Amino acid sequence: MSAEFPAEALQLRSLVSADQTLKLSLDLVPVPEPGPDEVVIRVEAAPLNPSDMGLLFAGADMAAAVASGTAERPVVTAPVPDAAMRALAARVGTPMPVGNEGAGTVVAAGESAAARALLGKVVSVAGGGMYAQYRAVNVALCLELPAGATAVEGAASFVNPMTALGMVETMRMENHRALVHTAAASNLGQMLNRLCLEQQVPLVNIVRKPEQEATLRAAGAVHVCNSASADFMTRLIDALKATGATIAFDAIGGGRLASQILTGMEAAASASAGAYSRYGSTVHKQVYIYGSLDRGPTELARSYGMAWGVGGWLVTPFLQKIGPARAAQLRDQVAAGLTTTFASSYTAQVSLPGALSLEAIADYGRQATGSKYLILPSRAA
Amino acid sequence: MSAEFPAEALQLRSLVSADQTLKLSLDLVPVPEPGPDEVVIRVEAAPLNPSDMGLLFAGADMAAAVASGTAERPVVTAPVPDAAMRALAARVGTPMPVGNEGAGTVVAAGESAAARALLGKVVSVAGGGMYAQYRAVNVALCLELPAGATAVEGAASFVNPMTALGMVETMRMENHRALVHTAAASNLGQMLNRLCLEQQVPLVNIVRKPEQEATLRAAGAVHVCNSASADFMTRLIDALKATGATIAFDAIGGGRLASQILTGMEAAASASAGAYSRYGSTVHKQVYIYGSLDRGPTELARSYGMAWGVGGWLVTPFLQKIGPARAAQLRDQVAAGLTTTFASSYTAQVSLPGALSLEAIADYGRQATGSKYLILPSRAA
Repeated sequence: MSAEFPAEALQLRSLVSADQTLKLSLDLVPVPEPGPDEVVIRVEAAPLNPSDMGLLFAGADMAAAVASGTAERPVVTAPVPDAAMRALAARVGTPMPVGNEGAGTVVAAGESAAARALLGKVVSVAGGGMYAQYRAVNVALCLELPAGATAVEGAASFVNPMTALGMVETMRMENHRALVHTAAASNLGQMLNRLCLEQQVPLVNIVRKPEQEATLRAAGAVHVCNSASADFMTRLIDALKATGATIAFDAIGGGRLASQILTGMEAAASASAGAYSRYGSTVHKQVYIYGSLDRGPTELARSYGMAWGVGGWLVTPFLQKIGPARAAQLRDQVAAGLTTTFASSYTAQVSLPGALSLEAIADYGRQATGSKYLILPSRAA
Repeated sequence: MSAEFPAEALQLRSLVSADQTLKLSLDLVPVPEPGPDEVVIRVEAAPLNPSDMGLLFAGADMAAAVASGTAERPVVTAPVPDAAMRALAARVGTPMPVGNEGAGTVVAAGESAAARALLGKVVSVAGGGMYAQYRAVNVALCLELPAGATAVEGAASFVNPMTALGMVETMRMENHRALVHTAAASNLGQMLNRLCLEQQVPLVNIVRKPEQEATLRAAGAVHVCNSASADFMTRLIDALKATGATIAFDAIGGGRLASQILTGMEAAASASAGAYSRYGSTVHKQVYIYGSLDRGPTELARSYGMAWGVGGWLVTPFLQKIGPARAAQLRDQVAAGLTTTFASSYTAQVSLPGALSLEAIADYGRQATGSKYLILPSRAA
């Protein structure tokens, strides 16, 4: 091991105990030795994505969180409700590293040529456990950033960009010609809007606030519907008629929005259909739920014939489905647009201890659209 | 035209008017001349399937139905609620013939060899408008019944048999190895149970009453769960573990049953999984809703990871998907098992006027499991 980095370093861990307590802590763990085909990355930036929240908070009641520990090594504990415990059985008692993606500098490498070629390079990686100062990963997981790109610029180069590309790819694979997206003013939503404008894919953006509507229109979005407005369904149906969108990606999950989208799609399809069919239109209408901003149940009115589907969607199984060759092409697209199409913006940058302050947790834990934190693990508290 | 049949004959029609009234009547319509590739069938038996109820009743409030007309030509009217009218716009003012399937004797044929070959034969047909005394259909829609089979035996040889076969075929096409079925004591459910026993496909039957459980067990069913019993989820999960079923066909539609099935499948999958995954198991779990015995909204708890889907399923698009060659093979299976595997039983046989008595409507309109009517259009009132 080189003298450039210590024997032990901090790793953020989330532990659920049998007594229904969540404990978030910064633990000193050995800096790993790289295997032959691995590199050790000094993690310099890692985003707090919505997709990290489930593993991090484990459904605990964070409004009841209590802080302890020291400024350098804070500890946060919170009660886990009965309902959440049921799904957590397999992780009780095991401290879980957190952080789906991040970026940093390769400071050690295994023996393989591929590993050694990355020494000193800035790479991004979606390997899990990225809320840590050092992380050993297989070279196959590393994306070398374009020359001049920083770890901050590359930190969020996997989850959101590959999700946006995956939505467009899924639309094409399943023979649709336009997209609907909810929570459309999110970092991901704005990215999808840029991507769809570039690729000339018609996109119906659904937001919940007038200022979000303005943000998207300023970014060139053509179809933006506010689900909180009185004429939402009318405007949604108009946008669905104009675009012919029959597939939606929904980050909300709970409530009636998915069902409203299907109702709108059916109304748009029926407007262009001929004779009455008691089973509704034969046009297949699909909503994929990829998030759960509303954890309540999804309520489906089923007033849209029989040609419809609702289901879960995640980027990882999607990438397995398209295979490594196509996934590599998508990764190349991300690298080419890292600071443009696929750029993320952050409302705050925090250290590892800073990420465990109750104030920060209250802020990024809300998952409010437009609020996004970046952890800089190398930064001192 | 031969002198064997009249110039005009009765046809049951369902008419929704702009004043929100449903009118069911028996209208005298000309007996059709067959086209070159058509035959005219004297319809002798046609079942009242759950899938006929939507077109027949148009969502009207049949509890408020009023009878008028004569004994030979009864008329039934009923109010259509606002909510139902929205989906009916395309049929307002157009009298709709009803009856998905039926069987009878070919009494006239067009010029083609295929048409002439059916003269005098007993055929079953899924052509729509079968609640009529005579019906002209293309020969391609006709299934010649095996020698000795009656129209009553062949009347329901399409919808239920092809649906049961379609469920098993869909299970195989989508790489599942066992089935779940709800409303499993229905005519269709008992048929599916026989088919699965024959084909050695593990089947989890979900029913709502103890006597339905007994009926299925007496018919050899291994896994029967009563959704009204206190230990339903426990028994369902046990059955899902035992069978490995990850696809369900649900006739209920509304409420939480579809979601409970997905929860059970996830519990069964997790029991055999290894380490904790925050996104749940990677096993895809699917529920197809093919009926709507409960018209209320479908409520999905989404407590089963991200690898799940819920959607509509209908036999007609399924047959289009598998193509005519495979569909013909399935039809051959039905013909071979017409009086065994694919036999239907009826609680009542009625004439066309009898089908429009308020008592009969109240009975078959309930769609209670085990209650099924057969119309004999050639029978006098």
